[in-house]
This record gives sequence, structure tokens and C-alpha cells, in this order.
Amino acid sequence: MTPPSPRTRVRRMNEKAAYDRATVEALLDAIPLAHVGHLVDGFPMVTPTLQWRTGGRLYWHGSSASRMMRAAAGAPVCVTVTALDGMVLARSGLEHGVHYRSVMVFGTAEAVTDPAAKEAALAAMMERLFPGRWSALRPMTGQELKATAILSLPIDEASVKTDAGPPADPPEDQDWPVWAGTVPLVTTPGTPVPAPGLAAALAADPPAYLSAFRVT
Amino acid sequence: MTPPSPRTRVRRMNEKAAYDRATVEALLDAIPLAHVGHLVDGFPMVTPTLQWRTGGRLYWHGSSASRMMRAAAGAPVCVTVTALDGMVLARSGLEHGVHYRSVMVFGTAEAVTDPAAKEAALAAMMERLFPGRWSALRPMTGQELKATAILSLPIDEASVKTDAGPPADPPEDQDWPVWAGTVPLVTTPGTPVPAPGLAAALAADPPAYLSAFRVT
Repeated sequence: MTPPSPRTRVRRMNEKAAYDRATVEALLDAIPLAHVGHLVDGFPMVTPTLQWRTGGRLYWHGSSASRMMRAAAGAPVCVTVTALDGMVLARSGLEHGVHYRSVMVFGTAEAVTDPAAKEAALAAMMERLFPGRWSALRPMTGQELKATAILSLPIDEASVKTDAGPPADPPEDQDWPVWAGTVPLVTTPGTPVPAPGLAAALAADPPAYLSAFRVT
Repeated sequence: MTPPSPRTRVRRMNEKAAYDRATVEALLDAIPLAHVGHLVDGFPMVTPTLQWRTGGRLYWHGSSASRMMRAAAGAPVCVTVTALDGMVLARSGLEHGVHYRSVMVFGTAEAVTDPAAKEAALAAMMERLFPGRWSALRPMTGQELKATAILSLPIDEASVKTDAGPPADPPEDQDWPVWAGTVPLVTTPGTPVPAPGLAAALAADPPAYLSAFRVT
């Protein structure tokens, strides 16, 4: 889980573009939680947020008043999305590890400023998470749109790393008398909880996108 | 999920030190996956890794050859640990959100260099994840210890944010005819998978720490 050098990163994306692009997109589409790295007064800051992808671009949003959103706009960022899929228990400490999928996307964050483009981006976010829900919501107001900042990044420079499989103990360690293997980790949605006061008819008929929802 | 200003951060930690320290420690102890933000050639990079806590310090490790580990040693970092606990579906787009717990720890990463201190730190990591396992492993060699870099950070400047509860629609939106509520997300360990070739006696008697393992 160590990063490639910037030079390696670029090369990797160029050399294995088709493969990497598909893997990058699949990972971004699978896992909404992202960690955005940016600078504040020259110091690194890592902010959790939800990301979504539309075509060749990755998006995230926040409050227009947010220091992070203002600091990151027009500035270099690294957006990292990681799934921790399991633990690998080997016979030696050194060979222990994790099953994971991780993508880093690097670039300069661009603010989406056009109101129609902002609304379209938010609709796309909802479509990714809960398809069909956006048009059923109380429509956004102009003021709400102003209060929402959206940042975007082209998915051009990216690095994917994944690990899976059993522990890779060398032959001389194979017979060490300790349990070895893997422990999978799975993130699953629980039963939806209707809001207090939700009309009985709505509570009784939950939309299909709730049971289809996945984050992995 | 927007970050406080550096000034606010420090103040927050000082003013609510006892409360925050307990919350910070509980979160760090609950969730091993961390995202470390650091600079590489002046650009932000966010690297996933596992963290663990011993007393008032947070630790993570990697390969001594890792560019990240070398770039972060002695440099400013932000270590962020986040649990995504659920989705909040409101009547308007604006009020949508997530249930989450997140902590950012800021400071200068310090390398642990003394071999005995390094080994003790790795033992503490294992003790956090799988108590009692370390002493059952094939012992570390000096070479393996050299190949492992460990970084550490005092948990002095930190910021915790959490959100939970039902959607907070204003009264005028409460009767909008759309499903509203929350969808919990839970990460659970699956059934442990013994390594291929694990002795039958070991496979038949999995250690108790496997079923006790949690990451949330």
C-alpha cells in the first residue's frame, strides 16, 4: 500500500491505459467514500467525502462556505478511494497484509460554477447512489445551489493497487505451527430505517433502489 | 464532512480536551484503515495504510523502500480515519447526508528507528488486531526489521466529526411525498479462510481472536 513515484504513476497510466482506466472506473463506481488530500497553508489535509464519476471525470461536493472546498478549488489534489477487503494472516509478521482495492487520482481540482451544470452533477451523484430518486425530491432552490460547491477532476493521472489471495509465506515458514489464512471483510447495507413521521403509505412501500444499494 | 480551520482545530482540542481525547482514541482503536496525507515534491498524496495507537501516539508502517514512508518521515502529515456508517435520505437534495465518524490527526511524522522499539511497535499493532498472535509467529529477523519502516505521530492536534440520526428536513418539507430515512452500513468479518496447505489440526482449531476481530 505504498504509492508509486509521480513519474511512475504517469507512465503506468499511459502504458496500461485501457486496463487501468477500466479498473479505475470500476473502483470509483463501486466505492463512494473518498479521501481528498489538499493543502491548507502549505500543510497536507485529508478530508473524507463522497465521490462520484461521470464519464472521464470524478466529482465531489461540499458547502460553499467550506474551507476545504475553497482551498482545493484550482489547487493540486489527490483523491484516494480504498476498500479494505480482508486481513491476511501469515506465519511471520512480515508477510501479514491486507486484501484491498485502492485508487489514487491526481490533478488540479476544478470548480463547477454554472448552475445548470451543478444541478446536473448533483443529479448524477444521486443517480449513482439511488437511481430514480432525484426527480422525486423537493426540487433544489437557487439558494441551495449557491450554497453547494462542486469540485471535479479529470481521471487522467491515476494509480490503482489491489491485493488479494492467501498469505505468501516462503517454503521454510510453511510448517510454522500457527493458524494462517485470510479473514474477509464485507460492508453491507442494513435494513432501511424510515424517518420519524414518514407517511405510512411511503414507509410501507420502500423504493427498489434501497434494496439495490451497495457500497463495495 | 468539511475540515475545521487549523486554528479551530487546535482550539477545539484544547477546550474539549478530555472529551475529544476519549472520542479520538475510541475511533482510532475501532477503525484500523487510515489515509495518510503527506507531500511529495510539494504535491499532496493520500496513501491508505493501517494505523494503530499506543497511549498518546498513533503509528503506521510500511516498507523501508517506500517513497511514502521516506517522504513522510520528519514531515507534516494528516492522518484521517473514517467510518461510513450509513446514508441519510431526506426530502430535498440539500439535506441528504451520511452517518459517519471521522478523526483527523495532524503533526510531524517521526520515524521509529531503534530496533527494539520497532519490534515493540509491530507487536502492539498485532496485539490491537489479533491479541496473543505475535508470540506464536515465526520470530522477526533483523533483516525484516530493517526492511520495515515505522512512523509515529503524537495525538495532540486532532479533530473529530461525527454525524448520526434521521434526516433533518425543515417543517415545510416534511410532507413531500418521497421515502425518507436512513440506510445503515455495517462492515463485518466473514468466515476465516485457512491458507492452502494449513495443517489440519491448525485449521480445525482457529484461534479465538479470529471470531473476536472487528474493524468498526
